[in-house]
This record gives sequence, C-alpha cells and structure tokens, in this order.
Amino acid sequence: NKRNVHLTYSNRTSQKNFVPPLDTFSRRHIGPSKDEQEYQLSTLGYKDFESFLNDVIPQNVRAKENNKKHFPSFDFDTHKPHTAPNYSESEFGELAENVANKNKLVKTLIGMGYYNVKIPPVIIRNVFENPEWYTQYTPYQAEISQGRLESMMNYQTMITDLTGLSISNASLLDEATAASEAMVMIMANDRKKRKTFLVDSNIYPNTLSVLRTRARGFNIDVKVVDISSEIITANEKDSFGILVQYPAADGSIFDYSELASAAHASNMHVVAATDLLALTLMKTPGEWGADVAVGSTQRFGLPMGFGGPHAGFFACNDEFKRKLPGRLVGLSKDRLGNPAYRLALQTREQHIRREKATSNICTAQALLANMSAFYAIYHGPEGLKHIASRIYSLTNILKRALESAGYDISNKNHFFDTLTINVQCADSILQRALAYGYNLRKVSDGVVSLSMDESITNEDLSHLFSIFEIPSTPETFIENLSDGKSISSVEQLPVSAFPKELRRQTPYLQHVVFNRYHSETELMRYIRYLQSKDLSLAHAMIPLGSCTMKLNAVSEMNPVSNPKFANIHPYAPEDQVHGYKYLINDLGLMLKNLTGFDAASFQPNSGASGEYAGLSVIRAYQKSIGEGHRNICLIPVSAHGTNPASAAMAGLKVVPVKCLNNGNLDFEDLKAKAEKHSNHLAAFMVTYPSTFGIFEHGVKETLNVIHQNGGQVYFDGANMNAMVGLCKAGDLGADVCHFNLHKTFCIPHGGGGPGVGPICVKSHLADFLPSNPVIHCGGQKSIGSVSSSPYGSASILPVSWAYMRMMGLDGLRDASKAALLNANYMAARLAPYYKLVYTNDKGRCAHEFILDAREFKVSAGIEATDIAKRLQDYSFHAPTLSWPITNTLMVEPTESESMYEMDRFCDALISIRQEIREIEEGKQPKGNNLLTNAPHPQRDLVREEWDRPYSRERAVYPVPILSERKFWPTVARLDDAYGDKNLFCTCAPMQ
Amino acid sequence: NKRNVHLTYSNRTSQKNFVPPLDTFSRRHIGPSKDEQEYQLSTLGYKDFESFLNDVIPQNVRAKENNKKHFPSFDFDTHKPHTAPNYSESEFGELAENVANKNKLVKTLIGMGYYNVKIPPVIIRNVFENPEWYTQYTPYQAEISQGRLESMMNYQTMITDLTGLSISNASLLDEATAASEAMVMIMANDRKKRKTFLVDSNIYPNTLSVLRTRARGFNIDVKVVDISSEIITANEKDSFGILVQYPAADGSIFDYSELASAAHASNMHVVAATDLLALTLMKTPGEWGADVAVGSTQRFGLPMGFGGPHAGFFACNDEFKRKLPGRLVGLSKDRLGNPAYRLALQTREQHIRREKATSNICTAQALLANMSAFYAIYHGPEGLKHIASRIYSLTNILKRALESAGYDISNKNHFFDTLTINVQCADSILQRALAYGYNLRKVSDGVVSLSMDESITNEDLSHLFSIFEIPSTPETFIENLSDGKSISSVEQLPVSAFPKELRRQTPYLQHVVFNRYHSETELMRYIRYLQSKDLSLAHAMIPLGSCTMKLNAVSEMNPVSNPKFANIHPYAPEDQVHGYKYLINDLGLMLKNLTGFDAASFQPNSGASGEYAGLSVIRAYQKSIGEGHRNICLIPVSAHGTNPASAAMAGLKVVPVKCLNNGNLDFEDLKAKAEKHSNHLAAFMVTYPSTFGIFEHGVKETLNVIHQNGGQVYFDGANMNAMVGLCKAGDLGADVCHFNLHKTFCIPHGGGGPGVGPICVKSHLADFLPSNPVIHCGGQKSIGSVSSSPYGSASILPVSWAYMRMMGLDGLRDASKAALLNANYMAARLAPYYKLVYTNDKGRCAHEFILDAREFKVSAGIEATDIAKRLQDYSFHAPTLSWPITNTLMVEPTESESMYEMDRFCDALISIRQEIREIEEGKQPKGNNLLTNAPHPQRDLVREEWDRPYSRERAVYPVPILSERKFWPTVARLDDAYGDKNLFCTCAPMQ
Ligand SMILES: Cc1ncc(COP(=O)(O)O)c(C=O)c1O
Ligand SMILES: Cc1ncc(COP(=O)(O)O)c(C=O)c1O
Ligand SMILES: O=C([O-])O
Repeated sequence: NKRNVHLTYSNRTSQKNFVPPLDTFSRRHIGPSKDEQEYQLSTLGYKDFESFLNDVIPQNVRAKENNKKHFPSFDFDTHKPHTAPNYSESEFGELAENVANKNKLVKTLIGMGYYNVKIPPVIIRNVFENPEWYTQYTPYQAEISQGRLESMMNYQTMITDLTGLSISNASLLDEATAASEAMVMIMANDRKKRKTFLVDSNIYPNTLSVLRTRARGFNIDVKVVDISSEIITANEKDSFGILVQYPAADGSIFDYSELASAAHASNMHVVAATDLLALTLMKTPGEWGADVAVGSTQRFGLPMGFGGPHAGFFACNDEFKRKLPGRLVGLSKDRLGNPAYRLALQTREQHIRREKATSNICTAQALLANMSAFYAIYHGPEGLKHIASRIYSLTNILKRALESAGYDISNKNHFFDTLTINVQCADSILQRALAYGYNLRKVSDGVVSLSMDESITNEDLSHLFSIFEIPSTPETFIENLSDGKSISSVEQLPVSAFPKELRRQTPYLQHVVFNRYHSETELMRYIRYLQSKDLSLAHAMIPLGSCTMKLNAVSEMNPVSNPKFANIHPYAPEDQVHGYKYLINDLGLMLKNLTGFDAASFQPNSGASGEYAGLSVIRAYQKSIGEGHRNICLIPVSAHGTNPASAAMAGLKVVPVKCLNNGNLDFEDLKAKAEKHSNHLAAFMVTYPSTFGIFEHGVKETLNVIHQNGGQVYFDGANMNAMVGLCKAGDLGADVCHFNLHKTFCIPHGGGGPGVGPICVKSHLADFLPSNPVIHCGGQKSIGSVSSSPYGSASILPVSWAYMRMMGLDGLRDASKAALLNANYMAARLAPYYKLVYTNDKGRCAHEFILDAREFKVSAGIEATDIAKRLQDYSFHAPTLSWPITNTLMVEPTESESMYEMDRFCDALISIRQEIREIEEGKQPKGNNLLTNAPHPQRDLVREEWDRPYSRERAVYPVPILSERKFWPTVARLDDAYGDKNLFCTCAPMQ
Repeated sequence: NKRNVHLTYSNRTSQKNFVPPLDTFSRRHIGPSKDEQEYQLSTLGYKDFESFLNDVIPQNVRAKENNKKHFPSFDFDTHKPHTAPNYSESEFGELAENVANKNKLVKTLIGMGYYNVKIPPVIIRNVFENPEWYTQYTPYQAEISQGRLESMMNYQTMITDLTGLSISNASLLDEATAASEAMVMIMANDRKKRKTFLVDSNIYPNTLSVLRTRARGFNIDVKVVDISSEIITANEKDSFGILVQYPAADGSIFDYSELASAAHASNMHVVAATDLLALTLMKTPGEWGADVAVGSTQRFGLPMGFGGPHAGFFACNDEFKRKLPGRLVGLSKDRLGNPAYRLALQTREQHIRREKATSNICTAQALLANMSAFYAIYHGPEGLKHIASRIYSLTNILKRALESAGYDISNKNHFFDTLTINVQCADSILQRALAYGYNLRKVSDGVVSLSMDESITNEDLSHLFSIFEIPSTPETFIENLSDGKSISSVEQLPVSAFPKELRRQTPYLQHVVFNRYHSETELMRYIRYLQSKDLSLAHAMIPLGSCTMKLNAVSEMNPVSNPKFANIHPYAPEDQVHGYKYLINDLGLMLKNLTGFDAASFQPNSGASGEYAGLSVIRAYQKSIGEGHRNICLIPVSAHGTNPASAAMAGLKVVPVKCLNNGNLDFEDLKAKAEKHSNHLAAFMVTYPSTFGIFEHGVKETLNVIHQNGGQVYFDGANMNAMVGLCKAGDLGADVCHFNLHKTFCIPHGGGGPGVGPICVKSHLADFLPSNPVIHCGGQKSIGSVSSSPYGSASILPVSWAYMRMMGLDGLRDASKAALLNANYMAARLAPYYKLVYTNDKGRCAHEFILDAREFKVSAGIEATDIAKRLQDYSFHAPTLSWPITNTLMVEPTESESMYEMDRFCDALISIRQEIREIEEGKQPKGNNLLTNAPHPQRDLVREEWDRPYSRERAVYPVPILSERKFWPTVARLDDAYGDKNLFCTCAPMQ
C-alpha cells in the first residue's frame, strides 16, 4: 500500500501512465533536437528519416521488428518476464539504488587478489567522478594529453620501483591476463623454442585458469609443479619459463633467489605474480632475479567492484624493453626542445604487427592505473610502508593468537597479510564468521584462510578473536605480547618487524612527485593541474572514427560510486550478490534482444579480449563436433589490428581477404578463399558497418558463404553504434559478436580504459562460454577463463545498463539514427572541401566517414598528421588518423554531438582547407606554414622573435571564437623518432 | 555481537584502540608536515611551538585547558554525554551515513516555499560537487572570475525575465530576508518618511516573522491586513508600502493590478513575494505593477536541505536601480575594449556606507544562484513551462476529483500548485497520508493543504486519491474528464490550460544562453567552459585576509550530497528528522565547548546575519531587564563594514572608537566613550584577533570596561581561525559571538555563498535566541525569526560537523597553530621586501598580516591594485585589497597551505617588488610598466604590435614555473568607471 519503488514497471504496465515524468533521458543524450534533425535531413535532401535510412542501410539488412519500443525485462522477485518502459533519470536512480541494495555488504577477507581499500576521497571526487579524467581517449594526440601522460609516467615509475624491475607498461587488463602476456612474451623470445611453462601450484586458481586458456592457442603446455630448483633442472629441456606467486596463494613467502638462478642457468625466465603492498616490505622480484613481475593494483585505491575493473601491471627487465605488451609512455621532447611525454614504441603494437603480434591488448585500464598512481602519490613511500606494516603486524598478532589457541597455520614461516588455517570444520567457521559479519575463504573442508587489509579495525580484530574462539581479547593478548610495557599502537610491538631475511632494503618512490602531494590541497591541485593539460569530452567533440566518443552521462556513472556496487568481493557468497546478478542478467537480456543472440558472457574486459574469447569459443565448439582441425581465419585487410592478433592468439592462421577499390569487401576473393580453405575454414571476422564506415550490401551472402564452407562468423561489434535497434548481427548470420560497451554503450574511455567486451553467441556456442574456477558461471564445456574475475569489469556494467534502461529500445534506435544522420550531415558539409574516401552507391556513409588527405602531399606537402595537429590549434581533437587507411582522417561524431559543435568542427576543417589552399597557391611556403608548424603552444607566442610567414593571431586564433574559448596544446609537436631512440619510461630521479 | 557502526565511540573509550586507523584527517588538512613546521619555527628563531605562541598570543588570553584532546559528545540512543575520539575519514563517512539514516525520507507535500525537485545530475556533478565551482571566492578579482560572473549574469537575467522587472541582484540569503530587505529599501526611499508596512495576511508565517523582527530595528510598524484597494486608501497616510504573496500562502492567485494602481496613487510601493515556476504561467509582478519581487529559487534545482541554503532573489524596477541591496553583476569592458563582467556599484555596499547602509548583506548564495541559473538554462523556456504546466494540470485534476468527492477547497478560484482543503479532521488525514508515505500540511484542525511539484508521479496521484478516499482512480477520473477521447498524457486534457485572465502573455528567457545548452554534453561543456576562466582553490592559494580560504575537503562535502540530508523538508514532522537534530546538537556542543558559551542558534545564514541576530538578542535581553533604552553601540573604526550596518539594523546608534597608530584599539578613547555613554551603552563589537591581524593585549580589560558601563560584548568571530583551541571568546568576556562556518569551519565559499553564521551566547541571553513560527526552536522570549527556516542553511552544517569531528579538539588546535605559524612564516619572508603595517610588540602577527603599498605611490606610481593585478600574471589570487586600510594587501594563508605554495607566493611578491624597484630606479617608466599594464591576458600576447617597455616573456612568464603551470586572466584590467556609468545587468537580448 505504501509508496515504494519498483524494480521494474510491472505494476505500471497494467495501467496507463498519464503522468509521464519529464526528466526523460534520450533527449539529453542525443545532441540535435527534433527540429534540428529535420533541418539536417533537409540539407541532405530528405523529407523524413525513413527515406534517409533507405539510402544508408541496405534493405535486407534492416531488422524486421522495426517499431518495438521497449525491451523485455523480468521482475526481480517473481522472475517473470515482462516488458519495461523506459526509465527517466530520477526513476533510474531509484531503480539502481534498489538493485544495489539487493547486494549485501559483508566485510570480506577472502583475499585472493581482492582486498578492502580506503580510496582517498580526494581521488574519488577529483579523478573517478570527474569527466575531465574519465571522458578522455587514449593519449594518441600527445600535445593535448600531457596531463595523463605524466600521470601514466608516475604509474610506470611506481611499478618499476616497487617491483625492482626496469620497465613497466601503462597497464594491462588484470593480473591473470598480465601473467598470460608474460608467458607468451617469454615463449616468443625463447631461443630454444621450448613449449612448456611451469607454474607453481601455490597460485590463485583464476590466474591458472587464464594461463591454461591462453596457452591453448599457442600450443603451450602449462605444467603445474611444486616449485624447487630441482624442478627447473628436470624440466629445462622443454620449459621456457616459470611462474611463481610472491607471496604465494596460501600466504607463504619464499625466497626465490635460488630458483631464479637455476632458471637463468637453464636459459629459462621467471615471472613473479606479486603484490605491490607487500613489496614495500619484502625484497623485490627484481632483486631476487625475476625477469617479469605482474599483478593487480587493486589494493592501491581501487574498489573491489565484484572483480573489476582494476589495472593489471606488467614490469620486466631491460632484456624485454622493446618486447613488452601494452602501451608504454615515454619521455621525449617537442620541436622546441622542451621535454614532452608520448606513447612510445607504437610499432610494437598489433595495428602494425597484426597477426604477428603476440598480444592483442588495445583498451587497457588507464583510469584505474592513474588512480593507483595518485594513491601512491598521496601516501608516499612512508605512508605506503605504514599501511603495509600495520597489515603485517595485525596478521602477525592474529597468527600468534591463533597458534596460542592451538590452531595450526599452514603458512607459518613467512607471510604478509594472509593466513591459511587448519580447522576442524571450515563450514562452521565460515558460519560463525558470517554471524559476526565477515566472509572468510574456505580452502577445503578442514582449511580456511583470510587476508588482512588496510580497512581492519580494532573491532575487526576482536571479532576475529571471537570467530576463532581465541580465549583472550586482542587487548590482553597484545598487552601480554608487550611484556607489560605500555604501548598505544601496534607499531610499538615486536611483532611488527618484517623478517629480516626477506626484508626490502632498497628505497623506493624517492622522486619528487611521490613526496610532495601529501595534503589534500596539494593533491587536488596536482590532479587539476594535470587535467588542465588534457582535452576531454568536457571541452569539445572527440570525433575519433571507430571509437564512438559519446556522452558518458552522470546518471549512468552515479551507480558506479554506490558502495553496494563498489565494495563487493568477486567471490562473495552468491546470496550476497543478488543485485549484481539481476543487473548482469538484465543487461544480457537487452544485448541479446538487440542482436538476436542466445547467450552472453561478460568476462572479457575489452573488445580485443572479446575477440579472443569469441574465437576460442568457436574453436572449442568445432573441436567438440570433431572439427578441431579447422584453423583458418579469414580477415579483411581493412580489419582492425586486434582481429588478426586475436585470431593468432586463438591458434588460428590468418588469411587476409582483399577489398575492392570502392572499399567494399572483395566478395570474389572471399569466396575463393573460403572455398579453397573449405576443409580448414574455422572462422571469418567481419566488422559491420565496415571499418570504412559503410553498410555494405551483400553482407548476408558473404556470411552465407562462410557457413557453406563450414566456418563460423565472428562479428566485431566496434561499429555497433550504427546498428542498434536498426539491424541485428544475429539476423545477418553472425555466430558470435562482441560489444565494446565502452563505445556504443557509454562506458567512458577513461584515457585508455576501462572497457568491457562482452560476447553474445548463438545457442550452439553457449556451452563454451568462459567460466571461472571459483564461482560457477559460463558454459558446461567452457573454454576456461579469459580474465581474472567471473564477470570481468563488473562494477562498470551499471553504466551500460543505465544507458539501455533509460533510452529504451526506441531511444537506442533514435540514437543510432541520429549517429547516422550526424555523420552524413558532416560528410555533406565537408564534401566540397575534402574528398570522401568511400561512400555507398547513394553517396552516403554510415556512422563515420573518411576524409582523404593524400592529394595534399603532392599539392602542398601536407599530410593527415599536419591537419590533425592544426586541429589542435582550433581546440579540437583530431579524428582517427591514418586508420584504416594511411594519410586519411576518419570522423565519427556520434549522436551526442550537437549541431552547434559539429558546425564548429566543420568550420575548423574548412578553414584548414583554406590554409592548405594558400600553400597550394604558393601564398604560404611548403614546410613552414600554419599546418606544418602546428600545434602552436603558448610558448611559441611568448618568444620575442616571430619568424613565421603568418601572424601570431592567425597561428592561434584562426577563427574568432577561439579568442573567447580556446583549449591550448601545452607542448609543440612531439619528436617521435627521438623518443623511440632514447627510451625513458620512468620519472627522472630526484635531483 | 555483529559488526556494526557506532554513532559515537562510546564502546571504544572503554578499551584501548591498538589499531588506530591510518586515514586520519588532520595531517591531510594541514599543509605543512611536522618536519616542515620545525623548519618554519627555526626560520623564525623558535625551538618549539610554545615559545612561538608565547610571542604571538598574550598570556592572559590563552585558554586554561590547553591540552584537552577530545570534544565531548553524547550517545545517539542513550543521550548520555561522553568524550569522543577523533574520527578518521572512513570512520566519519560511516558515522555520517548512520546519522543521515536517522532522518526518514517521507515524500513531503507541505510546500510553504519548499518543494521536491529533480536536480539535473549534470549540475550536481559538475557544479555542486566540483571544487572548481564551490571553492571560489566572491568575484572581486574580475579578470580571473569571468566564468561565474557570466553565470551570475545569467541568473540576474533569469530573475528579471521571470518577474518582469528590470533589475535583479546576484542573490540574497532567502525569501524572508529578501522580503525584509525590500521593506527596508522602500522605507528608506519613502519621501514621506512613513513608518507602516502593510502585509497581506495570506502570507507564509516565516516571512511574516522575519519581517517583524527586521521591522523592530527600524521602528517600522508591520500591519497585517486583508488586502484590498480600500486598505490602501485607509492606510496611505502612514504606510510606505505593502507586501503581497503571489500565489498566496493558501494557494490562491489574485490579480493585484488594481491594488498596485491604488498603492502607486498613494505613493506607496508594492512588493510581491512570488514563485519563479508559477511565473512561467502567470502574469508577472512587473506586469501588474509590483515595484519589487522577492522569493526563493529553491524549486529551480536546489535540494530542500531541511531549509537551506537556497538563493533568495530580489528584483526591482528602474526606480531602485542604484538602491537595491546585495551584489550586482554588470557588463563593462576591459582596457583593451573587450566586454567583461564585474561587480557593479560597489559603493552602495556596507563596507563603504557603514552604519548608513540599510543592508548588511555580504556573503549571499552565489553557488545556489548559479545552480538555479543552470537549471533554467538546461530546461530552457519551453522546458520550464512544461514543468509548470504539468504541475498545474495535476493540481487541477486533484482539485476536481476532491470536489467531486465532496470536499470544499478554500482557494477554488485560482491556484497553481497548492490546494487548501477543508476536511473533517485534519489529523486523521495527515495520519492516512503518512501511512501512504506522505507529509501534508496541517493548516488547522479542519484544514489541510498540499503542494504539487515536479516530482509527482502517477503513483503519487493514485495515493492522493486513496488518502482522500476519492471513489475513483486517477485513470478513470481522467478518462471521464476527457469525455472518452483517447489521451496519453495530462497535457492533452482541458484541465491543463492556465486561466486566461491570469495567464502570462510575454515571452521570457529568449537569450541564446537559455536556448542552446539542452543536451547534457552541451551543458557540461558550458559549465566547464565557464569554470575554466575562474581561479579557485583547486588552482592556487587564495590568501584573502579575513576570509580564511582553507581546504574544503571531500570527506566534509560528501554528506551534503546524501539524499537523507538533501531531501528533507524543514517542516517535516520532528520524528522524521532525528538525524539532523543530533547533528545540530552535536555541532552546537562543540562550538560552545570551543568558546565557552552556553547556547547556540544556527538560524543566521551568514556572518552578517549572525551579527544582526546577536545584537538583536542583546537588545531584547536589555529590554527584558528594563534597560531597553540602551541604544549606543561602540565599534572600532577598523571594524568590518557589516558591523556598523548590522548595528544600525538592530536599531543601535553607532559610535566609532579610534585606533592607535600601532593599530591597536585606542583604549583611552574606548573608555571615555563607554563612560560617556554609560547610561545608554548597549554593546561593543569587537573582532579578535583584530581586523589588523594582531592579538591585542588588554582585550580583557577592554571588555571589562564595557561590562562596567552596562554594555554587552558582541564578538565578531570572523578571525576565529587564529583562536580555535587556543583562546575562548567566552573567557575573554564576550556575551555573544558569531562564527563564520564558511571561514573557520570549512564550508566552501561557493563564489560568494552559501555561508552559515551561527551565534553562541552566554546563558543570560539564551532565552532570546531566534525562533521559527512553524517549528519549535530557539528561546522562550525569542526575538522572532532572522531567516526563513528554523535552522538556516541546515544542509551544509555537515561540512563543519565533519571538520570538527575528524580534527578533534587537538587537531583543531594544531590547525590554529599552523595558521599562526604559516602567517608568521610568510610575514618574515616578505618583511625584507614590503613594510608590514602592524605587528605586535614581539614583531609577530596573528593568522594574517598587512603589507603596505602606500610608499610605492610616490616612489613608483604604483598602488596596491597594481600589485593585485600583477599577481594574476603570476597565476595567483590577490590578498584582500585595501581593507581594512586603503592601499594595503592583507595576506591570510590558513593552515591548509603548504610550504611549497607559500614559498611560490612569496617568490611572486618578491619578484614583483623587484619589478617595482625597476620603476623606482627609472629602468621602467611610470604608468606603462609590468604592473600598471597587468594583468596580461592571452589577447595581449597575440597582438602583432608589442609596444611595451618589457618583453612578452616577462609579461606572462616572469618566473620560470609559469611556462609549465600558468592560470590565465581572461580579460585585461576592468574599467570600473565605465561600468558604473553604463549599467548593464542582464544578458544582451538575442541578436
Ligand atoms: C574495429 C575495432 N575492433 C576492435 C577494437 C578493439 O577494442 P578494444 O580497444 O576494446 O580492445 C577496436 C578498438 O578501437 C576497433 O575499432
Ligand atoms: C571581520 C568580518 N566580520 C563580518 C564579516 C561578514 O560575514 P559574512 O560575509 O558571512 O556575512 C566578514 C566577512 O568577510 C568579516 O571579515
Ligand atoms: O568535476 C570536477 O570535479 O571537475
């Protein structure tokens, strides 16, 4: 009877809602108003949307049920399916709150790589909840990205310092995938081409599971062993490397120095999966001889979030300097000779190396890496050590108390935060723990374990004493330990000294940046200072083709900050995570509905990870029907670099398919190759609309040919923003499809991650979906795990869920239509000035289009890069540069951009075309003009000499609005060659 | 037994806490580390803090119990007092959550000026939760404040457009004080010097109460009448004006055109207290002839917050253009001739007019005004009208349904959102309502009323039907109303048309700014664009003397966003607001403890409002003991302008007291005047440490003299940051004291408000503390109300509460010590370069100090303003300019500034001194140099001609760090004279 909030609209559908809410979301998300859209259509010569769409999308590609307005849903309590109207922003806020409340916050000491943390509020508000940090793209345009590049440099310095290794990348997806990357990197560099990888048995099960899955595609034999120097000798003929966990899964700490020596003596390499906080106290992997260290920065200020997103770290010694996977930030200089950061060694990446790449990592965890770096900066070396020491001391006290109460501790020799305890009945301990409000880990029927963390209080300690029925209180126990000496904190106890033989002796984080910003005011200013150098969606459109940089709305982001989503351990008991389960199911329901698929997995935590997972699923399926020999993957030459790299990782042989001059796939070539490889055809990877931004005709026939020849169709969903509500990948003939939720479905790009790359599959593939060794999920005949946690980056799924539930099916369709219209509107405005590389037979593009800059090379000595850099002077982020075609610019406005912004951008490009014309006409010299000298930072202006053939004013205020509203590049053009030659990837040491 | 969170530490105090949390707050709040403080002390020649303090604070001023560490507190459930240790940041987060949960969220339709709202999430995150907006100071330095000045201009435009009047100020404190300001402004301008003010009886009781209190000091007779043209004629001899509420308190709407004509015919002026949302539908006060319109912008996107803060608006016709109270933003131009905003007509303000001022308004509600402006911008004229129409339609439907069920509606003729309903038994209706989850208003035993708002849903309407036992559902009722025509929203109903005779016919908000930013992306960018022009604490220190611009920490701000604090109506039943009550009590307990007072009131919503309230309390007390004739208030000439203005408002005659050449109060003069006026001495207002930044000796003797002569001591707590934990105002002899919680106690300044100015009093004054006519609070013999709501700006009290509970008594004492040390450190660094105007006998200052610029006038033609503007080129905000002494700069660093930042600032001032020396030495010309031409915006640099006697580089990068980290002024120096002559205070109309 009371006013209550409904998880679903079940009660509303039964009655008319005469009082629709006014805070509807779709009109806030979509840039142009209805009137403006009419204007846009009319400039293109259309009377209505339908006739426009007919010219853009082939008839047989359009989905049948074009007019459905609402998604199906199901009632939280009754589980009955029904149709849910769209939620307004405030209604959604209530829904999200209610779903979050279905999760139970129980203090979880399960550990296994996930710990309670105290995120400094200054970082939450100023980074995590700040669009100027989370709406940035990967810092390809270095001159307008110096802030987060500096932050990533801090991150890399933190990782190298703590691990004792010389180089770190700028993050990977999580600990387990980082371990897999290490395995593959070492394997690829093994001179003896050995194929066995030894893994210590004392390792987290999820890491092992991901290693096993990853090993399959590379034919690596993962051999689980009890680590010892003898094991090395026994396996040296076959094994290229070995992975140990440090501290180990049961909490033990071993000194692996001898092991490392033995391994090196056998030309094997050693990987340490390790813990950054423990490394403030213990000897580093670098010191005892590890070649690679991997792990997660979760406990450096990142919410557990039911498993992610967290930054996976990866550090290695100099030997692998130019081999390590992922992005790498380096210090170079700009043309004026000033120091400037940039992404280094890009040539290693898969968009260059394609199927020869050994890693497909693209989107990583930039935002999370930056948060962790700020966490380390805020605490500084002393603060971090303090946190670690406190944890160690408490663990030690508890250990002694347990022992004095007669418990046998498995890892009694050396430990940091984790105790593995032999008990009579694990279940009854777990039950007692739950009664006190704690989750512990059940290792086996007679063994439990628990991990301490920075959140532990006096009260927690008391409760743990009670749970284990220790006949004392912490107070008296501690007083006894201190021999009657009066003490007021655990630091004064003898138990707080980390054992000498394992103790770290080397200093770390001695750089200024880790020693200045320890007050909230200083850290806030440092964060804001960095942010002020970076262009984000909060400043201007970021029209990066294939990246779909759309609005990341506050209503979508809000639930991510809810503690009941943020503070859930991925291995929390099922009955504590009903909220997450509901959300994940509901999101899956909508994605399947949109695309016509039957099952989904949210485990892949990037698009590339989805590709790899999807292809692995295909292979497992084929194997299961006796077609395991199929190993050919057809991929169009125009495909994104992750496609061939992922195919290679799944153990497939890539056969490229040609494109025609008009950009379309060469159907004849495809057909020929499909038929030729008919017996071995495993899969075809298709991106639709194509990476050239066109809805190709004949896609159905194409996919038919694949099926006819025994292959499966992998659908790359990167361009899904053109299709949502209009076409269904499933109908077109796809068997698997990944979504980049960080593109089409509003998860912010975070400056290079997080991302989510769920895959949807047809029913025949459902049994093979990724699983997790700890938590039941995925298919019956699963390929195993593809990432550390059961549902990947679960805690950001509310963003996409919010987007879809607020937009509704009709709103999403409107968004796609607006995205198509915006792109065509811009293309039409720009066509008189720039050649469009491809359009369809009606002269239309899909949601993006490619501008040709190739002709300017001859006519004016200008390349696409020059245009990109010049756009910075106009306060814009460049379109995607030289992809998928060299010397072109690919523009994708998305539906969120307004007419005002698109016009501003077109005006800029038109003005730049005029500047090019002046060079063509000899009015400006080649090689020393507004474009080749771009961008023009403030320092350029300030110099007294001005020897340019144009005025200062033209350089920086080429259009009037800029004198009012200008975003400045902070450095001049980067010198890439210099940077790659002189690789500096950590902060300069303190002078 | 379970893990649970404690409202207090009661259970902890009984046991030792061996596991103190590491996320302690005080070290994050205070800038310098312990090591740095030792260094600071050593540069001043001290070995320890104690010897330093001995030189700064007179011995007899120091508080006795110097070493107490903890504040008292009381247990939430048992109400037992006890001592509470300091909370760490995360512990405080839990405490705040728990206290918030003691408030009950019941949907409240009580209205009376407070409504449920839907705050657009884009505004919450990007303004309300964004330090770049909330940490700004009042925009005195226009060149680095163009963003919020533009926003305030938008606000002023919104208010004038909606009220139909020609000029609006940039906000007042709330509706009731705005009404009082209107009354006094009109009175002061009445040529016939009449003294009666007519007030329609159909008005909110809180407005009436504040009017009555305010009237007392001015000897105005507030006469409550039933409004009619005859009333005007009957009272024209005595009455200078009349106030009507539009819509009236019972929800009725009357056309006041005739009334206004009659009033004008009698040379009376008309004030309308009105509602912005209703004004989108109804004829404006300007159109029917009101001279002034006042009200609250709460329902334009501001949380109810248990009563505040909200922006009070004030608009008037041209007649009062130069008379209206409060700040006024005007469009002027800068020296380069470009348009630029600034605060206009500053000469009207009380720091110039002192006791002749008729208003003491200083801190207002800038942040809230800006939020409301963004709300209007986001919705635009169409959107606002839509919201209003929906409310009107629903009210109309409910009215008809009630009538058809036999209810008699009092305001049946015309209404907007409020219905006053005659019922059998109001209590039983209220009870039924509560059972359904709603609060309605009880008007009397047989009358209830309710107000609809933008949050009303279908479900709410159904529940209202049930509460009133209407024998129908909204659905069938609406279907019947529509005569069987199929309708899908209320807008299609005939009931949705606002009555023609009252309907607004004029357009509003036609300016570009209200018609472009309707998508979230566009509004986010507009907000961020404005913010990018403004220097805030997120960029650099703001060393404004007497303003205490310290850290506003995220942990302190977080609870303000909690819906259980934000969404509480000030008149919610007592048993729904236990959380607020606990918090307010606990905060009062701490403030009283700090200062040695006995009772507190949180009703004053600014420092000036506190002054006025405190003096009124003194007068009421004196009257109660037969000393009502006492009417002399002694005020030092050095006092802040609000002091004499407040005294005048309280009906006191100001007698200024001289200061000596050394800056100290002239004790002889004071004594002489106190004795001379002994029979009429009401009060003495003292600021301590003095406004010159010195802890004067002899303050106790001074205050003694006052008491000996029958006066009471009013203590201006603006400089409390120097005293907290070190000295107690109560011990010194003060009877009343106000706190600026927005200075000492961390409420952010918000660019000119919100603020909170609670007063504490000795026991003999407690009976007179402010009350509220609706909710029981305040003293038995209260002075009445001083602001609209019972606890003033209640929803920001959690900020100060957080600060105090996390710092603890010892932390606060450390903060004061650090504030004193920081000031003395800077003073010592600057002393070789600038004359310090005053120091004490040991050469020390308190928490701030004054730099003399007067000598440079002769030596270099340089004034303090030039130094202030030049500081902008160094990316700093200037210190307080020419207050309390003309041509000086008063510097207050606060404890939150780090050594690094203070040194950076000192380096800038030292470098500027060098620039002055170059003028003195003839190396740079007078009148055309780095200082007189400052600040140098980017446009200066871009110009081709550079005719300055210094380089571009020196102009903008005078010290090297600026080429890395520069905050730019966006316009050149403002032309104040031009602006005051040509007053433009609203946005330019659409071209
Ligand atoms: C077409 C295409 N496929 C795959 C990817 C890889 O996605 P992710 O960066 O999420 O790994 C991208 C990313 O830009 C892409 O554009
Ligand atoms: C000494 C002094 N008294 C009173 C005030 C007035 O306080 P408020 O601005 O809160 O009204 C101020 C404000 O700066 C002040 O410095
Ligand atoms: O949102 C920001 O905090 O800038």
